[in-house]
Amino acid sequence: MQHSDIDILVCEVGLRDGLQNAKSIMPTDIKKEWIRAQAASGFREIEVCSFVPPKVVKGMEDAEEVVSFALECKNLKVVALAPNFYGAKNAISAGVHKVSLPVSVSEAHSHSNVRKSRSKMIEEVERVCIYRDNLGTGGGLQVEVGLATAFGCSIQGKVSERDTVETAIACAEAGADQIVLSDTIGIAVPSQVKKLFKLVRANLGEKVSSLHLHNTYGLGLANACAAIEAGANSFDSSLGGLGGCPFAPGASGNIVTEDLIYMLEKQGLRTGINLEKLLQCRQILKRGLPEDQLYGYLVEAGLPKTLN
Amino acid sequence: MQHSDIDILVCEVGLRDGLQNAKSIMPTDIKKEWIRAQAASGFREIEVCSFVPPKVVKGMEDAEEVVSFALECKNLKVVALAPNFYGAKNAISAGVHKVSLPVSVSEAHSHSNVRKSRSKMIEEVERVCIYRDNLGTGGGLQVEVGLATAFGCSIQGKVSERDTVETAIACAEAGADQIVLSDTIGIAVPSQVKKLFKLVRANLGEKVSSLHLHNTYGLGLANACAAIEAGANSFDSSLGGLGGCPFAPGASGNIVTEDLIYMLEKQGLRTGINLEKLLQCRQILKRGLPEDQLYGYLVEAGLPKTLN
Repeated sequence: MQHSDIDILVCEVGLRDGLQNAKSIMPTDIKKEWIRAQAASGFREIEVCSFVPPKVVKGMEDAEEVVSFALECKNLKVVALAPNFYGAKNAISAGVHKVSLPVSVSEAHSHSNVRKSRSKMIEEVERVCIYRDNLGTGGGLQVEVGLATAFGCSIQGKVSERDTVETAIACAEAGADQIVLSDTIGIAVPSQVKKLFKLVRANLGEKVSSLHLHNTYGLGLANACAAIEAGANSFDSSLGGLGGCPFAPGASGNIVTEDLIYMLEKQGLRTGINLEKLLQCRQILKRGLPEDQLYGYLVEAGLPKTLN
Repeated sequence: MQHSDIDILVCEVGLRDGLQNAKSIMPTDIKKEWIRAQAASGFREIEVCSFVPPKVVKGMEDAEEVVSFALECKNLKVVALAPNFYGAKNAISAGVHKVSLPVSVSEAHSHSNVRKSRSKMIEEVERVCIYRDNLGTGGGLQVEVGLATAFGCSIQGKVSERDTVETAIACAEAGADQIVLSDTIGIAVPSQVKKLFKLVRANLGEKVSSLHLHNTYGLGLANACAAIEAGANSFDSSLGGLGGCPFAPGASGNIVTEDLIYMLEKQGLRTGINLEKLLQCRQILKRGLPEDQLYGYLVEAGLPKTLN
């Protein structure tokens, strides 16, 4: 994945990972306002929803409407999560540019998260990829795998590097375009991130460019730096640090989008994002989720004079 | 600075940096309890107080008594801050093993912090070093310089690398045994830390092994990782993330001791510290500073099963 005018691509996942863990249901109009504002601040990729059964995850009943709205935003790649073939088909029908399927390296988390074994879930990825290939849309639609619990699992405990590498390879062989290393419970440390990222990348090349990090131990940004040193150029993050995993005990919020962008830009890594505009997006979040706590250091400290 | 059985030395500075910024005055007995408990958790170095005029910084009137108590703890190097020759002399009389003098790279912060220009403060360091040499105690007493605002200043703005390197060299020539790079306002980013640390170290060698980091933008631990990659093997930190700088607007707390130790140990870097015992020390802090907010991720997330 190369981007000519930016160094690091940040994909906002608050509308999916954040909202599925929020205390209240965000009204559809506020979701649209959020997408519009964040796209206007320079985001090129937003995971706007998940195509899941309402009885499993609440607040995603408006997925089609949200995708339809997001598709009207200029230069925005619209991503949706789908936990299975059925959801992926709906996401594709809705018109997403990319569908993201979660494959857990941990068998225990796989059963908890998607009610399937890991191998069954990889078969699901294969079905989606065959479906995509048969659409004949010229390869415009991307299939991404979020490799959940790649660094450890709160249910199973340790996850071996070998399992992570083998699962990643199996997902690529099933046809996935991108494999995102996901620290679902925020258990990773920088040296581990660097080592594992290099290892998976050595097997799969640039299909592995992105990470999905949580901030449970306050190490999310340190882990992002370690990944960049190992060659990563893309991250998921959530505005206000929303997020978690309803099916992984102890999982806390994603890395905070605005803190991540600040860290990257201050190091001279271009993200294409306007931080002042991005900070204003938090107001939309506050209105839409009045009961939820928002996180973030930048908003407290303020943009320093010495940023550029 | 080499330590045979540990990889990274962590110096607790909460009793100095933390308490000088706290809302309430901690009773002397609770300070002693804190020192005892943290030494028992494995700390080998604690900055226990500062020798400052009571009208400038409150809550340090018991400095001599606190030092005297700390000297009874086994295997503990007792450190005190002193803003000038007079304070250093008192610290040395009290029996400290190390006296730490703040020298600001930023002229503006120097005037605000110690009411002296940078060059006058370096002269003060020289006076202390001459005094130490004349004591003839066989070199047991160490003189450390905390190189304040080494990465930027909220009053002056940018601080040039050249100024930082030249100030560090001047302090070493004045006789300082150790130069600690201090990110007084927590403005540093990892790439900057790595570059500047290498640069200063290239000039002064192992005299430069330690950093004093604040967490204003949530980057303290990422900065610590960057410093380790550049060769650092020692850090200041505060239990519960207390700290700040009363004379630097916008400065927030130090990096959180317990989160730092967790990050290091989880990466296989030995600190000699027992994390369970360390977490219990927070209770003492809560009793001693009932009005102050304590920070930290580890205490919320809990020690994971997979630590060792």
